[in-house]
Amino acid sequence: MSTATAATPSTPPEALVAPPGLAGVIVATTALSDVRGQEGFYHYRQYDAVDLARTCSIEEVWHLLLQGHLPDEAELAAFRATIADAQRLPAEVSESLAGVAAATPPGISPMTQLRTALSMLGGALDLTPVWDLSAEEREHDAIRVAAQVPVITAAAYRRSQGLDPLDPRPDLGYTANHLWMITGTEPAPEHVRAVERYLCLTVDHGFNASTFTARVVASTGADVAACVVAALGALSGPLHGGAPSRALDSLDAIGTPENARPWADAQLAAGHRIMGFGHAIYRGKDPRSQLLRETAEELGGPLAELAVAAESAIDAALDAARPDRTLRANVEFYAGVVMHGCGIPREMFTPTFAVSRAMGWTAHVLEQARERKIIRPSARYAGPPPPQPVPPLASR
Amino acid sequence: MSTATAATPSTPPEALVAPPGLAGVIVATTALSDVRGQEGFYHYRQYDAVDLARTCSIEEVWHLLLQGHLPDEAELAAFRATIADAQRLPAEVSESLAGVAAATPPGISPMTQLRTALSMLGGALDLTPVWDLSAEEREHDAIRVAAQVPVITAAAYRRSQGLDPLDPRPDLGYTANHLWMITGTEPAPEHVRAVERYLCLTVDHGFNASTFTARVVASTGADVAACVVAALGALSGPLHGGAPSRALDSLDAIGTPENARPWADAQLAAGHRIMGFGHAIYRGKDPRSQLLRETAEELGGPLAELAVAAESAIDAALDAARPDRTLRANVEFYAGVVMHGCGIPREMFTPTFAVSRAMGWTAHVLEQARERKIIRPSARYAGPPPPQPVPPLASR
Repeated sequence: MSTATAATPSTPPEALVAPPGLAGVIVATTALSDVRGQEGFYHYRQYDAVDLARTCSIEEVWHLLLQGHLPDEAELAAFRATIADAQRLPAEVSESLAGVAAATPPGISPMTQLRTALSMLGGALDLTPVWDLSAEEREHDAIRVAAQVPVITAAAYRRSQGLDPLDPRPDLGYTANHLWMITGTEPAPEHVRAVERYLCLTVDHGFNASTFTARVVASTGADVAACVVAALGALSGPLHGGAPSRALDSLDAIGTPENARPWADAQLAAGHRIMGFGHAIYRGKDPRSQLLRETAEELGGPLAELAVAAESAIDAALDAARPDRTLRANVEFYAGVVMHGCGIPREMFTPTFAVSRAMGWTAHVLEQARERKIIRPSARYAGPPPPQPVPPLASR
Repeated sequence: MSTATAATPSTPPEALVAPPGLAGVIVATTALSDVRGQEGFYHYRQYDAVDLARTCSIEEVWHLLLQGHLPDEAELAAFRATIADAQRLPAEVSESLAGVAAATPPGISPMTQLRTALSMLGGALDLTPVWDLSAEEREHDAIRVAAQVPVITAAAYRRSQGLDPLDPRPDLGYTANHLWMITGTEPAPEHVRAVERYLCLTVDHGFNASTFTARVVASTGADVAACVVAALGALSGPLHGGAPSRALDSLDAIGTPENARPWADAQLAAGHRIMGFGHAIYRGKDPRSQLLRETAEELGGPLAELAVAAESAIDAALDAARPDRTLRANVEFYAGVVMHGCGIPREMFTPTFAVSRAMGWTAHVLEQARERKIIRPSARYAGPPPPQPVPPLASR
């Protein structure tokens, strides 16, 4: 960061000018998670996220994020009951959400329906600004908002298919209920485990734009729904990432293993990026991609086989075209393969990402709310110097 | 800003640590506006905002913000036609918005209804990520979103009163239509001018948390509705400000001019802040407050008289209690007095603020979209050191 040059009178000489996009500027302290790109791993609290995804349920990871420790068996049972409660809304609120959904024009994506429903939910539940709440009340709101993400998005999807929405089942875990509410069939245990890994891997990942947005809104003291609604807006931006369907679209275009190398060469020759490859922070392999590949291979099937073959071919094409960089598969490349293999329809890929990321966003909201300091940076004015006299309309 | 101390391995030694809340850190360059707190004025483009508010319509100010210059008569007529078009929605979208409103539980504030409706509107109008649009298309979307704020909030208010929503009238200007859509009576010219001043004064004011939120979301390339929905979340936070009803609540509590000084002394003795006094940037008088006081006095009436007497008494009480600081009336103090004097009900004060601020937010969104650089800062991890082995559930 440099001190301001060419300062206008509005820019005090001691003002500090951040690099574009605030790149590399530390704007918060967090005890939730971190990405150690150079070392090739990331962690939630003190645990490697991939280790957690291999061995824990999403409920355990969510508890870790909120409470700072992994639950024991009694805590886990209590936390599961809390989540199940949070997924049940008062009847009149459910009716309002159904009314909003019924009024929604056809063709609106489940993500836009989610944003709209959560916006109304914040009012319907009469959520309170985070600063006026105890830590327990805030956490209660965070769980209520995040736990509605799978309920609302699955209902939106089923309505778009002419199907009735389904309530979560008390006998199923969080991940199994996510699949149940989408498909209406009890998911196979291997599908639950595969999706659970994906959810655990994507709860949080550094200080991305949606997480930062949630924290800026939380810094004003706004309620949890306001923060998540704002974060969903940031997530909807094409630069944010988090759209696992794009890599699957590429696999559709590739079609056969033999076609992967010519396809990748043609993409690169045309100057296109290859979706699902490369990451701003990981210089080598993305640890999320590695576990998702393993998971895809365990699930098996022609798409997984195509993806594995395509990955090797694309690696080779990238090494040939960009010898200066190491671009490897990122979280997006195998995410769609895993979700497809578990029966999740393509339009529910990003909503599934939102199911886990909402846990991360709300955990950040709770952490930010403890700061009690509004995030309010400055800007430098670079227009014509004021004040000029205002010319009357007739003489312009 | 300092370089990172006690850096963890994840914090590169060259990382820069911003002060809490990014206070004083310049994160963007803008040609839209600036606040010169030390000099006691603020401006839009090259014009003093108070001068603009005295002499211009809100349409002229909006044109200035979007186009960089005040319109001539032909440009103004064309811009008014553009806005009138933007206030008319396709019939099926209007029906969807009405359906969402009908499904909304009673008691939800017009601001929450606005956020919900704009979220759905972004999908219903199929708004496109800002980066995929030409400058003209982006501006078209910005006007469509901002121009719906008075339509949606007035409809929400009227429904809450058991009244039918009203369409804007083509023969009225933007401000007169705002009043018309709320009250259903053609507003007096002096009320239109008074509210027009308030709108012009509140279009933009530095890089506050909601404006910054809109720009962070815009930096991901998200559509204009996503940005405004997020900004509304930040505005809903109690620390953000922008709630002109609070100062009016204080005047209610004061009741009579004679009671102002004892009331203020009692508030200060109890350690309470006095709403409507003091500002983070202006050390002396807030220029917005001065024009609004003048406007309130022109409108006249007992509330304006009470406000003027209370301002003097509160000034004296603040000077006595805080001789080290100069706390003077800010924009909130007379805003409610002016709006009340023009027949705006109290629950429509903040929505009226949103009517003008939406113009500022969307102008910032358009400016940010030209940067094509995501805002993605960093955080410093300050939890237990990773990676620790994950203990099995049974042994926790």
